[in-house]
Amino acid sequence: MSERMILHEYAASGNCYKIRLTAALLGLSLERREYDIMKGETRTPEFLANVNANGRIPVLQVGERFIPESNAACFYLAEGSSLVPADRFDRADMLRWMFWEQYTHEPNVATLRFWYGWIGEENFSEVQRVNLPGKRAAGEAALKLMDEDLAERAWLVGAGLTLADIALYAYTHVAEDGGYRLGDYPAVQAWLKRVEATPGYVGIDA
Amino acid sequence: MSERMILHEYAASGNCYKIRLTAALLGLSLERREYDIMKGETRTPEFLANVNANGRIPVLQVGERFIPESNAACFYLAEGSSLVPADRFDRADMLRWMFWEQYTHEPNVATLRFWYGWIGEENFSEVQRVNLPGKRAAGEAALKLMDEDLAERAWLVGAGLTLADIALYAYTHVAEDGGYRLGDYPAVQAWLKRVEATPGYVGIDA
Repeated sequence: MSERMILHEYAASGNCYKIRLTAALLGLSLERREYDIMKGETRTPEFLANVNANGRIPVLQVGERFIPESNAACFYLAEGSSLVPADRFDRADMLRWMFWEQYTHEPNVATLRFWYGWIGEENFSEVQRVNLPGKRAAGEAALKLMDEDLAERAWLVGAGLTLADIALYAYTHVAEDGGYRLGDYPAVQAWLKRVEATPGYVGIDA
Repeated sequence: MSERMILHEYAASGNCYKIRLTAALLGLSLERREYDIMKGETRTPEFLANVNANGRIPVLQVGERFIPESNAACFYLAEGSSLVPADRFDRADMLRWMFWEQYTHEPNVATLRFWYGWIGEENFSEVQRVNLPGKRAAGEAALKLMDEDLAERAWLVGAGLTLADIALYAYTHVAEDGGYRLGDYPAVQAWLKRVEATPGYVGIDA
């Protein structure tokens, strides 16, 4: 990875933070380029043509090439390190948690954080109001599933921190911004502290 | 992979089909165990305790261990084969498409197939009716993004078929079941034919 790497991001996004945390734990340096998603800066013709046709951040630029999707960018950075298990089954199990994060956790836990923190309850659309109870219940179920799993083990996969933990830490540790109560999930709270005690850890505001 | 492998599935699900197609292209044999999702057979206490606490299929059983999440199971089967690129950047780019599939394509393209084909328009809930226009638009945007990409290349990543193509083929080729018009996406249609011409290909009904 001798090529120059640039993270195209919106710093407060947990998806962008995942990539910064992965890089920090690996001792890799990333240039950072900020886009204001609230002003549509990732939907400009230039961004769509040159950075990501999907109009979203984060995107990890490696030389002149681009990797959208937070968990794919983390995988690119971490392959071959201890953040990706050497065992074939464990590696697939790590990806299992990362796909679960994007399908089941992020659309509920992260989305309510965005709705409450960036849009504001008084501005919710009809679609948001109708979806709120389902997203709340699904987010609580996701946190409960993590809590039950983490009651039996220190890390989501294997014997140490992997990208599965990083991917799920990003939005779990700020879940209260979306109205979730982390006190209901003691094993999750203990795991958050383990992640934060890892050498090289940086916070979302760093 | 000398261990016995069992696919816990609902055969008509595109997510389950991805794993069968991957196994077929690799010449691997899987036992198959069918669950009727319409009767709640993946939400029984036994299924939640023994197969997947998340209450969903597919789950790939390897010996006595279990891999939920379709794309993680495909990765487990295909690692080390030509279905996973040998180049580090391309491997991450393949995962990029697979995460995009689960976050942006499946919740729109697959979900409308399920709503129209399994629930029926006359039975749609209020939540479904309110979400329909947004899901239709997002699904069309996803197919358009694929079409623009595939207008410039034969396969989503690199020079041959990879898990990215398999993951996106599964629900794209049956998108019309959800009311999408594949005729609007000629490059996608040509790519579907390329996937179907691959030696070892099996259809979703096989």
